[in-house]
Amino acid sequence: MSNAPVIVLVRPQLGENIGKAARAMLNFGLTEMRLVNPRDGWPNPSAGPAASGADIVLDQAKVYATTADAVADCEHVYATTVRKRGVTKPVVGADGAARLIHSQPGRHAILFGREASGLETEDVALARHILTVPINPEFGSLNLAQAVILAAYEWSRIGREQAENTGPLVQPTAEEELLPPAPQDDLEGLIAHFEKLLAPRGYFFPESRREATARTLRSVLTKPGWNHLEVRTLRGILSTLERPERTSD
Amino acid sequence: MSNAPVIVLVRPQLGENIGKAARAMLNFGLTEMRLVNPRDGWPNPSAGPAASGADIVLDQAKVYATTADAVADCEHVYATTVRKRGVTKPVVGADGAARLIHSQPGRHAILFGREASGLETEDVALARHILTVPINPEFGSLNLAQAVILAAYEWSRIGREQAENTGPLVQPTAEEELLPPAPQDDLEGLIAHFEKLLAPRGYFFPESRREATARTLRSVLTKPGWNHLEVRTLRGILSTLERPERTSD
Repeated sequence: MSNAPVIVLVRPQLGENIGKAARAMLNFGLTEMRLVNPRDGWPNPSAGPAASGADIVLDQAKVYATTADAVADCEHVYATTVRKRGVTKPVVGADGAARLIHSQPGRHAILFGREASGLETEDVALARHILTVPINPEFGSLNLAQAVILAAYEWSRIGREQAENTGPLVQPTAEEELLPPAPQDDLEGLIAHFEKLLAPRGYFFPESRREATARTLRSVLTKPGWNHLEVRTLRGILSTLERPERTSD
Repeated sequence: MSNAPVIVLVRPQLGENIGKAARAMLNFGLTEMRLVNPRDGWPNPSAGPAASGADIVLDQAKVYATTADAVADCEHVYATTVRKRGVTKPVVGADGAARLIHSQPGRHAILFGREASGLETEDVALARHILTVPINPEFGSLNLAQAVILAAYEWSRIGREQAENTGPLVQPTAEEELLPPAPQDDLEGLIAHFEKLLAPRGYFFPESRREATARTLRSVLTKPGWNHLEVRTLRGILSTLERPERTSD
């Protein structure tokens, strides 16, 4: 099936859980796994037996030092969380995420946090959407492989549903609209460029509010889903603003 | 949620898998488990630890000698199978079964077979529907708890969907997200502010391309549909950029 998402396990602890996640993925045809800084290194001898034959997923898994590196080539990033957080990002279920993946061009990545603690705030900040599965408020105990299998199952189910029914949910119109959002590292470059200009002018002052201010800036800039041409235009604007005014004008 | 199905584990082998199934159920609010002739008897000391706190499900689990006994009080029986069998019964997915459960009165039971071999032909014969989850034809390796969690997840998801009567694809959560796009004159103010900063730095040079350049700037800035708070953030950014750098920094 087309447009398979990348499954990114962020700082996973047990090799066994990496193997189970691989098995969960392959049941529904997902094969691309990325690992961010796995606690016990990689490869991990406990992963293979737990994968029950899903070796193709483990053999092709790639390791990255940071979450930002792992999604640098991805146009759409989903952060899987259980708890509601104070983030102002759109929230989708596993089904909603699957519909977006099947309808929007570009590479999609789904982030899963470490077993005990989930994703860190800075991992969530990279994402455009929060993926959350509504579970029993009195007993929320989804493990890593179960979260992965629900995402994989929905990707497969929605793909079949759409193949049987009509076209994509959102029909792009103009040619411009067909350009996918810029990959994440373009966006990171843009954000860094803004910060570089703003910091020496006191934008992040006082220091105590620095993080909150940076988060606001990030959410304003990640909302649009600009394509790479639009990001290039904005980079041009920032470069222009770095120049001094021409007083002779 | 109303009309929760009964989960029937037929001749399960490992207590650990019974515990995992209980945990999978309770995540999505299912609490009624029945066991048909569990291999190692009942209660089973391995079940509790694997249930990770879903003790309420295990404590209430009832044991039956035969599958027919276990579903004697159920109006609707679903037999979960992976392989296609030569049975002439209607086949539903986990989503289809969930729709039937929510729409048809009476007690529904879902049968899951033993870990290695699945349901026997005589168990399947008791059912009115076959429940099967389409999986990767080259790698079908769903374990018992995973099959249970997919059924429980779909029961929960379809229940919410029917309660909400198909809400929007992307659910806004924070109040921020509910804000409408800023009015046009906010946007015009933002565009004018950009132009005021950019013009004296030669951004619109050469004059012959001025109009096209301004149009590009405008389309990048109108695409996001920023709300008035987001526009205010951007105005703050531009005001900051008008300030000289603090060389003392």
